[in-house]
Amino acid sequence: MSCFVVSEVQPESPALPHVVIIGGGFGGLYAARALVEAPVRVTLVDRRNHHVFQPLLYQVATAALNPSDIAAPIRAVLRRQSNARVLLAEVAGIDLTGKLIRLSDGELLPFDYVIVATGATHSYFGHEDWAPYAPGLKTLEDAIEIRRRVLLAYEAAERSTDPDERRALLTFVIVGGGPTGVELAGALAEIARHALASDFRTIDPTQARVLLVEGQPRVLPPYPETLSASAARQLVKLGVEVRTGARVEAVDRGGVVIEGERIASRTVIWAAGVAASPLARSLGVPLDRAGRVVVDDHLRPPGFDNVWVVGDLAAAADQGRSVPGVAGAAIQGGEYAARAIADRARGISDRGPFHYVDKGSMATIGRASAVADFGRVRLSGFFAWLAWGLVHIMFLIGFRNRVLVMLQWLWQYLTFQRGARLITGGGLPTVARAKLEPQPRAQGAGRMPTAPMP
Amino acid sequence: MSCFVVSEVQPESPALPHVVIIGGGFGGLYAARALVEAPVRVTLVDRRNHHVFQPLLYQVATAALNPSDIAAPIRAVLRRQSNARVLLAEVAGIDLTGKLIRLSDGELLPFDYVIVATGATHSYFGHEDWAPYAPGLKTLEDAIEIRRRVLLAYEAAERSTDPDERRALLTFVIVGGGPTGVELAGALAEIARHALASDFRTIDPTQARVLLVEGQPRVLPPYPETLSASAARQLVKLGVEVRTGARVEAVDRGGVVIEGERIASRTVIWAAGVAASPLARSLGVPLDRAGRVVVDDHLRPPGFDNVWVVGDLAAAADQGRSVPGVAGAAIQGGEYAARAIADRARGISDRGPFHYVDKGSMATIGRASAVADFGRVRLSGFFAWLAWGLVHIMFLIGFRNRVLVMLQWLWQYLTFQRGARLITGGGLPTVARAKLEPQPRAQGAGRMPTAPMP
Repeated sequence: MSCFVVSEVQPESPALPHVVIIGGGFGGLYAARALVEAPVRVTLVDRRNHHVFQPLLYQVATAALNPSDIAAPIRAVLRRQSNARVLLAEVAGIDLTGKLIRLSDGELLPFDYVIVATGATHSYFGHEDWAPYAPGLKTLEDAIEIRRRVLLAYEAAERSTDPDERRALLTFVIVGGGPTGVELAGALAEIARHALASDFRTIDPTQARVLLVEGQPRVLPPYPETLSASAARQLVKLGVEVRTGARVEAVDRGGVVIEGERIASRTVIWAAGVAASPLARSLGVPLDRAGRVVVDDHLRPPGFDNVWVVGDLAAAADQGRSVPGVAGAAIQGGEYAARAIADRARGISDRGPFHYVDKGSMATIGRASAVADFGRVRLSGFFAWLAWGLVHIMFLIGFRNRVLVMLQWLWQYLTFQRGARLITGGGLPTVARAKLEPQPRAQGAGRMPTAPMP
Repeated sequence: MSCFVVSEVQPESPALPHVVIIGGGFGGLYAARALVEAPVRVTLVDRRNHHVFQPLLYQVATAALNPSDIAAPIRAVLRRQSNARVLLAEVAGIDLTGKLIRLSDGELLPFDYVIVATGATHSYFGHEDWAPYAPGLKTLEDAIEIRRRVLLAYEAAERSTDPDERRALLTFVIVGGGPTGVELAGALAEIARHALASDFRTIDPTQARVLLVEGQPRVLPPYPETLSASAARQLVKLGVEVRTGARVEAVDRGGVVIEGERIASRTVIWAAGVAASPLARSLGVPLDRAGRVVVDDHLRPPGFDNVWVVGDLAAAADQGRSVPGVAGAAIQGGEYAARAIADRARGISDRGPFHYVDKGSMATIGRASAVADFGRVRLSGFFAWLAWGLVHIMFLIGFRNRVLVMLQWLWQYLTFQRGARLITGGGLPTVARAKLEPQPRAQGAGRMPTAPMP
């Protein structure tokens, strides 16, 4: 078996304490990288082989970027970190007391320290039956599926001869007016107005209807009111119908019911609720109402001094203010936990509590259109959009991805087109016809056909 | 219904004859474009929304390029051609006599002229049961599936503790030594030697085994013998085991049997047989043994003067020599059929027969390694590779795709990395273990766990 010897550089050296990190999102990946010089062995477990840059997922869903532009193989990111290994595996449960992680294939993974960073998933607020009709946007597969649905809706509308069906196919409803919902709505309006404008012969894509529904009185609820108002204005300018203070009462095959009004739509996207990853329940520690793990000011569940929970999975507070579920907070949490473990491995006593530094929030709305809140400085419009692009390029992992994304943004800016308009996986559109009949025949093309089809 | 009125520019004008083109590959798409100034209405029907640049499919399968880099939405390609419309639909049958096309959803599409260009699919030479174990490479979905299998094989090998299983996981068998097989084998060897070399901790990817199996006495059988020999030398240099004159006798879950020898492999790729698209059988015209439509020297099935069959679906001959199933022949056939239809629509009498101009063939083997046959000029190695890159970039459809592909090739050349290493869709690797037991525990990390898992 000499050709499959275990390689020389071995993170398995049993002399060092073993840190297991569960989840390769922002929290987990930045924690692993922050442990590069610590005297520990690191194992990062994720059920996917790639880290996804979630803030740009909506651009994959709206055919602006390729899946691989916003994803990096976790293994490649940690390639040069010789104290880290990556396992592509699903975690079935965690025994905090026994210091053991059980993988779904039965393998047991012992740990000395663990960082749990499995993030969040969608929540339909108890209406799980809405899920098939209103997919959410958390993974690359979600984004590809939404892209497929949006593009197929136009294709089916082009072929439909039933005006009601066509209207429903060209109606896009986004539930949830947070950053993801705002960004999706803006991008879908732009696709209709620009990218697809001259691609069809029967329908006019610029007449498509994009609705953004938000239960609270304004879009982007956590932002300052002036920015929410600006975002709403920019959305309306793009042609989005913004409905705030409106609750979705039903989602089904036919569309949605909003405040008693039925809106026929074949494409509903869920950008509303967030629920903690179900792994939290296996920990046997207190959870909050959203299923997140309640942690102390050191990001640890009470009673465990070798367990950290970071990112969207944690219900954390910093001096009484709850830490938001954003990428920046996950990164800071992951790095904090890594530093605490490195200190411990070096015999240094505990650091102080976790402090979240809010570096600002931004949401893009469309071409040259965005809002940005940096505390004292608030931007909207073109400069907010420039700042948004700059910050997102900076944080993208991998030089290659940065160059490719910049180039595609430039191309889109100049041409108004979208490059990733692929429909893959899944079938053809189902076409509803008012009446199934042959199309009008060319004159002089001979008699109407009577021969039976083969 | 004023918001969904039929647009002004209407290719449906019933005064003009109706040309239906079935298939948006090289033959169909170039035919549609060649009809831009003809006094006809054109309808291009394809069951996918995108044209795929098939010669680069293997680069998607080997994680070098993104699916959308080598694909273009057919609708976008024909955007400015006002006499053409695009239908995303599947053709269920063609009634040549009744001049009617039946779509799978029941719609009937009458035509005056038809160009059938639905291409070819894999053939397992009657061993259809091999298909699940040895996927072929014809569509983007095929390429994504092969990429998934290759990357998962490494992931599973990293986790496997059974040496035999690990060896089978790191053995890749490509059946068929034509251009696709040669290109896949070279790329898989390069992935192992370079892209993945330092990404794993338990396995050594550079020890992976890549086998190329060809039934004929040499690889690239249609090429001149010197180039076949050069290709084989270049493959061996990359670490590929080349087995020529060897027949595959079985393919199953465990691997392949080649000339009585069983080779354990978890990843077998089929690059051997080609069969005409099954639509040919619905035409009711003579087919050859591979199921292709036998056409006359005007690319028409005998007895029909308004039907053309072009590309891989046609069994065509030019002065007694059969026209090969390559992109160049499909393009020339599509353009020939379009010119014939345009002439007819203008009342001009028939042109002469179809002549295929062989502009040469090329296959890339790896980094700075290829063979090219331009008739009198034959290249191999670096200059063949440069020529290959240049020609493929030139023929890629869409400025955006050209720039993105060039940039990614440059990046790969400089870094030895591959950028599209995404595993999407489908599950985790199945991991076989010699013995299921906890991994060695860190010393000083406390007692061995005894607590039951949650």
